[in-house]
Amino acid sequence: MNTPRITILSGTNRAGSATRALAGHVAGLYRAAGADATLLDLATLGPEWFTPTAYAGRNDTTRPEARAVLDADGLVVLTPEYNGSFPGALKLFLDMLPFPAALAGRPAAFIGLAAGTWGGLRAVEQLQSIFGYRNALLFPGRIFINGTNENLANGVPASDHASRLEKQTADFIAYVARFASNR
Amino acid sequence: MNTPRITILSGTNRAGSATRALAGHVAGLYRAAGADATLLDLATLGPEWFTPTAYAGRNDTTRPEARAVLDADGLVVLTPEYNGSFPGALKLFLDMLPFPAALAGRPAAFIGLAAGTWGGLRAVEQLQSIFGYRNALLFPGRIFINGTNENLANGVPASDHASRLEKQTADFIAYVARFASNR
Amino acid sequence: MNTPRITILSGTNRAGSATRALAGHVAGLYRAAGADATLLDLATLGPEWFTPTAYAGRNDTTRPEARAVLDADGLVVLTPEYNGSFPGALKLFLDMLPFPAALAGRPAAFIGLAAGTWGGLRAVEQLQSIFGYRNALLFPGRIFINGTNENLANGVPASDHASRLEKQTADFIAYVARFASNR
Amino acid sequence: MNTPRITILSGTNRAGSATRALAGHVAGLYRAAGADATLLDLATLGPEWFTPTAYAGRNDTTRPEARAVLDADGLVVLTPEYNGSFPGALKLFLDMLPFPAALAGRPAAFIGLAAGTWGGLRAVEQLQSIFGYRNALLFPGRIFINGTNENLANGVPASDHASRLEKQTADFIAYVARFASNR
Repeated sequence: MNTPRITILSGTNRAGSATRALAGHVAGLYRAAGADATLLDLATLGPEWFTPTAYAGRNDTTRPEARAVLDADGLVVLTPEYNGSFPGALKLFLDMLPFPAALAGRPAAFIGLAAGTWGGLRAVEQLQSIFGYRNALLFPGRIFINGTNENLANGVPASDHASRLEKQTADFIAYVARFASNR
Repeated sequence: MNTPRITILSGTNRAGSATRALAGHVAGLYRAAGADATLLDLATLGPEWFTPTAYAGRNDTTRPEARAVLDADGLVVLTPEYNGSFPGALKLFLDMLPFPAALAGRPAAFIGLAAGTWGGLRAVEQLQSIFGYRNALLFPGRIFINGTNENLANGVPASDHASRLEKQTADFIAYVARFASNR
Repeated sequence: MNTPRITILSGTNRAGSATRALAGHVAGLYRAAGADATLLDLATLGPEWFTPTAYAGRNDTTRPEARAVLDADGLVVLTPEYNGSFPGALKLFLDMLPFPAALAGRPAAFIGLAAGTWGGLRAVEQLQSIFGYRNALLFPGRIFINGTNENLANGVPASDHASRLEKQTADFIAYVARFASNR
Repeated sequence: MNTPRITILSGTNRAGSATRALAGHVAGLYRAAGADATLLDLATLGPEWFTPTAYAGRNDTTRPEARAVLDADGLVVLTPEYNGSFPGALKLFLDMLPFPAALAGRPAAFIGLAAGTWGGLRAVEQLQSIFGYRNALLFPGRIFINGTNENLANGVPASDHASRLEKQTADFIAYVARFASNR
């Protein structure tokens, strides 16, 4: 396999999110591991993504944000937990992607983070249910970062989380390679 | 209990949705049953709901859409199924409501609809998981309308669905009444 | 409403479980609050519950364990987390109860417990999904006890958990009372 | 990769189940496709699997039923839907398998079946949630057979289901091969 193209999806559009900070850190891990990493930050989506007529453009594959998904050999999705689930903005983005090309057969890894105890468990599991429904290839090694106020400083995780993120990076690159001939 | 105030939430912002058409029908059922019904159509939400800074205004209780939820004795949530789940726009709306007042202790009934076989089952169950997490009072009698192209004409459901909707209306009003002294 | 009859279901058949110990404590709370509490311990189920032909007897309402459910004004279900879900033994028991009488319209509260971080969150949520599917009335105030090795000593919970259990007891009795005329 | 060893798990212990009949058909498909297929029928589990002390023997790897899982390059799990979920007997069996060896890193495919409309969707998704939690490798192509009274005759599926089962068989064998060097 050639250099794997990995898109890191920062799964909220909230200004100044810890998710966005961590996504930058994760993109750095993938680059350090030899991948071609693209950071896709939902906070950059314009108002045209949230209009009653936006659905008609769902299959437009020329939008850069859609391309960042369609061109990826693997997706790393970072999600905070809002109301016991993923952010609506993240699902809205998924709803606006070409079907079925966006997710079907595409490897996907997940990272949840939350200020509370559960570290985004519910958000990640509901997302995996959606990705599985759309026939994505679910990488099993999930990461949950709880207590983000203590465990994340400017996107840099505390040491045990840091080593788990490094392991996920290496393992997900290997997982993506297994499916390289598939796409 | 006085006249119950029921807010009917049309759970997508997609233009011309079957969900919006059915929501109008459901609002009529509640009015016919003596309730004070308000129809809340997510297609009317402006771009200010989808900005990185919108989260800071989450607890603004003066917005009419927030009031439609906060003033309701019961919510009836209609949801289509997008990508095996509820629309992102619906969750975004929930993410922008005052916490915990929006959902805690509030009775909620659910109607799913989909063009396919499953009638929104997954969308409704994931929503119920969120409402349950936020301590809403989940009305057990759910309705799923599958094959909407055949079973819904301009928001008017086929006969067996129609009678189930009427039963849900009556039963949910009774359910809301049980909690009237609670709020 | 007369004295509410509450059945406390200890949701595993494992010998010497923390769940069984806590169930005894919870039964005591309900008695102290004036309820008529019955403790149903799945560890007492005999081998006749796990045979290929047991399903044929599902609607036998004379079995004491079935009666403990059918006669309850409310169920309090305690579940540990095995493999990220409820014990198979608990679901087997539910599969052997009369349908739909066992769960439909019956108030149910949930307590999860686990040695790990998540306190049975997944186990409880999957159970609630089943109870909701069967039209039970889901009491919103759930309790999760994590780190049971530290937080439970012989079934006696640490102080913050203890006060939450007392609150759940009082609130669930009030919830059951709201539906008393329903059954 | 050598001949893949595939274990077909008939996920209920109910006597005379459609699941068992279909499992026999599926085992035949895998044999026809060149796999070494083992059929594991939960109806053959003896009463020793359902005792309060059985949990202590969970890590006994000498039991033939445990070996059928541990030696498999891939698992095909067939599940009916009982009470909107998988059978308790199936989960009990999983609870009695060695941890983490039984599921971690093991490819798994799923087939749901039900007499009703939903074809085991809920049962399969809850199982996938458990297998995912235990780090199994979830094969994305799921099969749901609804209306089993019409669509299954003695385990032989109607034609459209039959061709989907054949496709799942071929695709799952290819999926298992991708991970062959992993185990």
